[in-house]
Amino acid sequence: MDTTAIAKPHDRLAELLADDMGAVNALIRDRMASEHAPRIPEVTAHLVEAGGKRLRPMLTLAAARMCGYRGADHVKLAATVEFIHTATLLHDDVVDESAQRRGRPTANLLWDNQSSVLVGDYLFARSFQLMVETGSLRVLDILSNAAATIAEGEVLQLSAASDLRTDEAVYLQVVRGKTAALFSAATQVGGVISGAPEPHVQALFDYGDALGIAFQIADDLLDYQGDATATGKNVGDDFRERKLTLPLIKAVARADADERAFWVRTIEKGRQQEGDLDHALKLLHRHGALADTRADAMAWADRARAALSALPDHPIRNLLDDLADYVVARLA
Amino acid sequence: MDTTAIAKPHDRLAELLADDMGAVNALIRDRMASEHAPRIPEVTAHLVEAGGKRLRPMLTLAAARMCGYRGADHVKLAATVEFIHTATLLHDDVVDESAQRRGRPTANLLWDNQSSVLVGDYLFARSFQLMVETGSLRVLDILSNAAATIAEGEVLQLSAASDLRTDEAVYLQVVRGKTAALFSAATQVGGVISGAPEPHVQALFDYGDALGIAFQIADDLLDYQGDATATGKNVGDDFRERKLTLPLIKAVARADADERAFWVRTIEKGRQQEGDLDHALKLLHRHGALADTRADAMAWADRARAALSALPDHPIRNLLDDLADYVVARLA
Repeated sequence: MDTTAIAKPHDRLAELLADDMGAVNALIRDRMASEHAPRIPEVTAHLVEAGGKRLRPMLTLAAARMCGYRGADHVKLAATVEFIHTATLLHDDVVDESAQRRGRPTANLLWDNQSSVLVGDYLFARSFQLMVETGSLRVLDILSNAAATIAEGEVLQLSAASDLRTDEAVYLQVVRGKTAALFSAATQVGGVISGAPEPHVQALFDYGDALGIAFQIADDLLDYQGDATATGKNVGDDFRERKLTLPLIKAVARADADERAFWVRTIEKGRQQEGDLDHALKLLHRHGALADTRADAMAWADRARAALSALPDHPIRNLLDDLADYVVARLA
Repeated sequence: MDTTAIAKPHDRLAELLADDMGAVNALIRDRMASEHAPRIPEVTAHLVEAGGKRLRPMLTLAAARMCGYRGADHVKLAATVEFIHTATLLHDDVVDESAQRRGRPTANLLWDNQSSVLVGDYLFARSFQLMVETGSLRVLDILSNAAATIAEGEVLQLSAASDLRTDEAVYLQVVRGKTAALFSAATQVGGVISGAPEPHVQALFDYGDALGIAFQIADDLLDYQGDATATGKNVGDDFRERKLTLPLIKAVARADADERAFWVRTIEKGRQQEGDLDHALKLLHRHGALADTRADAMAWADRARAALSALPDHPIRNLLDDLADYVVARLA
């Protein structure tokens, strides 16, 4: 998922949470080290210092601060969430045989697949150590469930991605796994460690879930109509990689016999030829698949904002509202 | 690590713990499933039903029963330990590019590396869910530390395996990671959930640690002097794969200039030719490296048995004593 497009509300959050984020970054540097295996900090430094937006840890910090948290465990949980995210990136790059991540060569290319698999495992283990330190069994329950949902979503994607039977329900399951599960766990645990009342904890979960889904749908839509200089992706990458995302799923559902044969050849069988992407884009437009996907993303952003309304007024709540807006504003 | 050679005391333990093991196997089948991703149970069933010896979960059950445990969490922890072990096997097969495991084609060969990486992640997450269900923060601490030690040892092995500077201390660190950390965590948590007194918990840890180390040293020694029909491995596999294990480390430490050049060529540079294995075996014998490795394995088995002496008399204690004996008896 590309997170560059939400820089603005994200930057304001980063400013507001600068002290906390400083502590998170220090903890990440400390815990990604290894006394015995020097390869570990080499690989993690490459990835951690490439400087993602740290959106997920920021969501945990924001949720905790908004709920009036005064302790220090939010920093541990924010680092936990970033470690889980980094571990999944390392494994994703092996799975996707990626060569680039955040504009730099991937770890599997610089070192080897072995290092990416094992250093990812190390970061998963480190994330569990960190969350255990908080001593909150409820937090452990939420985050271990999220880890299982993430892995399940990724495995589901392996078999569903090029299978024309994949429908919107399966797509949503995959998106919850690859994106929304960690977003919703990140916001929820911020509320839980603050001892927030149950309706607020639920609202934080709902916000993270809907935000993550809106985000991923927007990302999948931009793959077909984005500006490569803004998104860092080429139009049609998902089509070329035979990945059934929401726009294609909608077009396949509305296909006549000829169109269906086209999707079988290009996606299921992967026999693509020149002009196929243009034809795919024509079909997407013909069936209103792009407009409908955009409407779905908007609806999920609305749900994210609606969830926030259950929380008390707070400057951070306004920024999270802006964030939900911004995710889909780039689709205008 | 090959566990076939300890069948005898293991079989007697299995008989004594048959009811508990039945519950563990049922729990494993239940939790390795996935509501959403059918690929997951396919892969896990292949591995789980290949029928390893279930040595690690049996150690947890044995420790709990020996400490008089009367609850049901020992079954969850035994399944946890087996899930962690299975996850590491899936990832090891990707890392080693293995084609066979327990006499059957590996998952990465039957499906693909992607499935092995992601299903391994799923089993890690499932193992954390299971241990969280016990509600014991101390157990969570022990097992999350073990997971980190395992990954760290595996990463260390990547860089140390063909590096002639690898000494016995580094070897021990790798062995603790790849084998002993899960053995010692398996026995220790059995004592912890039983509320055993601290000296008993420590004794259980020490037993598992020493047993795991004895086991791995024996395995590495058998690679040079084993009987292929008994071990399922060919003599010299580690030499051909340029893996510095204890026998080679001892021989390298005692090498003169000519011998050192031989090790540089065959292990560091990997330029092996016909007759090299025979020459390596001659050097191992000349420096007493095999006899000394055997003595080290015996000493660790002695430490395992000595640790047991801190525990009260119990039929299971006698079986664990026999198990330590049996691990090195195959080196006679």
